[in-house]
Amino acid sequence: MTYCVGMTLDRGTVFMSDTRTNSGVDNISTFRKMFTWEVPGERAITLMTAGNLATTQAVVSILDERAKTQADRAPGILTAPTMFQVASLIGQTLREVILGNRSGGMTADTGLFAATLMVGGQIGQGKQRLFLIYPEGNFIEAGDDTPFFQIGETKYGRPILLRAYDPAMSFEDAVKLLLVSFDSTIKANLSVAPPLDVHVYDKDSLHRGRMFRIDGDDPYYQTISNGWGVALREAFTRLPAFGFPEKGRSGG
Amino acid sequence: MTYCVGMTLDRGTVFMSDTRTNSGVDNISTFRKMFTWEVPGERAITLMTAGNLATTQAVVSILDERAKTQADRAPGILTAPTMFQVASLIGQTLREVILGNRSGGMTADTGLFAATLMVGGQIGQGKQRLFLIYPEGNFIEAGDDTPFFQIGETKYGRPILLRAYDPAMSFEDAVKLLLVSFDSTIKANLSVAPPLDVHVYDKDSLHRGRMFRIDGDDPYYQTISNGWGVALREAFTRLPAFGFPEKGRSGG
Repeated sequence: MTYCVGMTLDRGTVFMSDTRTNSGVDNISTFRKMFTWEVPGERAITLMTAGNLATTQAVVSILDERAKTQADRAPGILTAPTMFQVASLIGQTLREVILGNRSGGMTADTGLFAATLMVGGQIGQGKQRLFLIYPEGNFIEAGDDTPFFQIGETKYGRPILLRAYDPAMSFEDAVKLLLVSFDSTIKANLSVAPPLDVHVYDKDSLHRGRMFRIDGDDPYYQTISNGWGVALREAFTRLPAFGFPEKGRSGG
Repeated sequence: MTYCVGMTLDRGTVFMSDTRTNSGVDNISTFRKMFTWEVPGERAITLMTAGNLATTQAVVSILDERAKTQADRAPGILTAPTMFQVASLIGQTLREVILGNRSGGMTADTGLFAATLMVGGQIGQGKQRLFLIYPEGNFIEAGDDTPFFQIGETKYGRPILLRAYDPAMSFEDAVKLLLVSFDSTIKANLSVAPPLDVHVYDKDSLHRGRMFRIDGDDPYYQTISNGWGVALREAFTRLPAFGFPEKGRSGG
């Protein structure tokens, strides 16, 4: 599996992805799942991937090749005029790759080759936007009501996002929140693991923002990982104590 | 879906289950998923169910009928001599029901009728025991390393259990912990909902313990639900702040 989160804030978008891939439990590897493209001053685009690694690598390679091939008349992700068209283009590419695998005749099941993608960024005068792209190639967009998306192993890390997300939060707080969400997931699920890739896009910069990788032995990550367990237990202790209902109330 | 947790403690076992069932999102109902049997002073058994409602209701009805039929020579759950044999009996019954549905010829897919069960309790001189029973009828037992089981929609509520569980905790703290775990699940997933059924079994009592139901508008549940959001945000705020790495450290 995988865990990736893209989170829109008032001041920009923060992307975080893990790097664990596995085929069974005895074949694990580290692969980057976050990819960025930019035309400085004109566009900055970040893609994160979850699902079949052959599929997602093929999608990224095709996007890369088409972006570089001037001869190709269809717009690539470096020339498409809007983020909507970028999402559309990536969705089509994803569907092509998945269907292409099936048409090899080995299997009629496209589920095996499925992948789910997330793409965010900003182009020219457009707003920053964030899309979640399904294996079928269609997609949905984040908005004020649902300002972040998760792909992959999403459930463990969701409660803290629901409780602590705030669109006005600083980038530092957003990275901290994402680290807590990732740590909860990593603690519970073998298929998600550090190092974690981060990209912090400043709204309206139209440049690739701060990108860095957080290793499992990073001191701050360790502080969060250990500190969060302590903090959770303290928070739990401070909640009012439960008292058993009077016998009269008891059902049975 | 469903969410049920069985948690063994030094002083007994606490069971909690939700009551939401759904067939699609437009056909939701409330059904009890926790069932208890006792022979006072000799045994107390609690069963919780997740999965196809027709399957789980059939299993419970069959267990009930066989327990009451004196003519039936095979031991029922009220006569089986050990918790292991009770788990085995329930597993066989579950498999029978699932296979029986398939043999009707409508479908070869047993997955549709699948259910996962959890049974815990104590018989005579035996220890308190807790088993998780798979649709295939086989089962695993909780131990010191894995002292609690979850069935149904298990992921959202798992991180807090992993962090705050302590075998020495009081029953009151255990109920509080389970309410936090259930609340995180209920907030994130439509298919899990109150009221919540609780059974607190006192080790070595060999009697049904305190049983009660917690409604969604129960004041304590509301306190936990609202208080946990606040407590989480406070805990999050107290964690040390993230600082962006120096430019020199940043990757690409």
